[in-house]
Amino acid sequence: MDSVGTKSGIINIARKLFYSKGFSKTSIQNIINEADIAKGTFYHYFKSKDDLLNQMTERDVEALYNLIYKILDLDIDAIKKLNMVFQTASTWKSENIQMMKVLVKKILSDSNLALRYTMLRQSIKQLTPIYQRIILQGNNEGLFNVTDTDYTANFILASFINNGEEMYKFLTAPKFTEDIILEFKKYIHNYEVTMERLLGAEEGTIHLIDSVVLEKLLKGLLEA
Amino acid sequence: MDSVGTKSGIINIARKLFYSKGFSKTSIQNIINEADIAKGTFYHYFKSKDDLLNQMTERDVEALYNLIYKILDLDIDAIKKLNMVFQTASTWKSENIQMMKVLVKKILSDSNLALRYTMLRQSIKQLTPIYQRIILQGNNEGLFNVTDTDYTANFILASFINNGEEMYKFLTAPKFTEDIILEFKKYIHNYEVTMERLLGAEEGTIHLIDSVVLEKLLKGLLEA
Repeated sequence: MDSVGTKSGIINIARKLFYSKGFSKTSIQNIINEADIAKGTFYHYFKSKDDLLNQMTERDVEALYNLIYKILDLDIDAIKKLNMVFQTASTWKSENIQMMKVLVKKILSDSNLALRYTMLRQSIKQLTPIYQRIILQGNNEGLFNVTDTDYTANFILASFINNGEEMYKFLTAPKFTEDIILEFKKYIHNYEVTMERLLGAEEGTIHLIDSVVLEKLLKGLLEA
Repeated sequence: MDSVGTKSGIINIARKLFYSKGFSKTSIQNIINEADIAKGTFYHYFKSKDDLLNQMTERDVEALYNLIYKILDLDIDAIKKLNMVFQTASTWKSENIQMMKVLVKKILSDSNLALRYTMLRQSIKQLTPIYQRIILQGNNEGLFNVTDTDYTANFILASFINNGEEMYKFLTAPKFTEDIILEFKKYIHNYEVTMERLLGAEEGTIHLIDSVVLEKLLKGLLEA
């Protein structure tokens, strides 16, 4: 038996169940039954349902990182690169709305504060070298004016934690409304201005997400 | 029996034990024995040892907030106010080094990610109105140039989360060295520059902590 295939197979079946029934309503037994495997096989690959979700997320996010790494090698200036990274990430999220929903729901439950924290710290760690490269390039091109590249990359990414918190606040809204879009747009504009200041970039140069993608993302997340 | 007195009494005895034996080595039974109370009395006031620590911390931190609120009412400009808030907080920490040690040790243990996160979110919530007032004043005085006061106050405070993380990194250092002070000073300088940018303040105006207090604080935390 191809062990990697089996692992992927279980992940795919779990994914289907998580997306249709929801994460909390899917039991390990459900996954075992649907995959037609022995209990021992499940526990050979995964410590728990949470571990399975982590491994699933890691695989999915790896796909996003591969897209981002390609952007880094493009022959464009640092501001275009940074904006492209943002666009790519938000487009990817809007296209993986089912997974985002599972994650957001899981992370939102209060009992998962530790998970939320760990995941956010993990993203910061993974994204830091990407931001460092872009900031360094921008400094060299005279588009940014940052004194300590490492510090600033880390600082910007750490602020994602707060962005995350704000996101959750929006996402706990009972349903999608035009007001939520407006509030979210204001929030994003503030964040763009803040980043321009931190990077020493010219006003109006940084764009986090375009309106169409934003609307798609919010609608997708808030509609049942 | 004066119920408030009893609660304070238990907290004071627990504090003595936490400071001498350490938090993790102090059991509820130790506190009960030392305070000479019935088990039921303890559980009347506190859900758990963690709850006792939370209530103890809340009381101590209230004292700090009272000092900070007094600064807000002083007739000085916003930059002086902000710097005074920073100075007061760091001096207070260096004077309450025993409590800081208990907290830092408790928070540092990985199993307490949720606690760490909750405490940091809690400080952000409490500090936000203080920062909002100072930023507003600075804007009016032409010393700051912030477009969205609420957003910027929240953003600056959220970055404390990351400062916290960096602090922990330093504080897990095996012992106090001159290198740690130097690294810490660099970190603080970067943070000052970042805040000046976020606030639109002139370069070199914001001072987080003075060298003497910093050294006292680091030595106190790192020495066994």
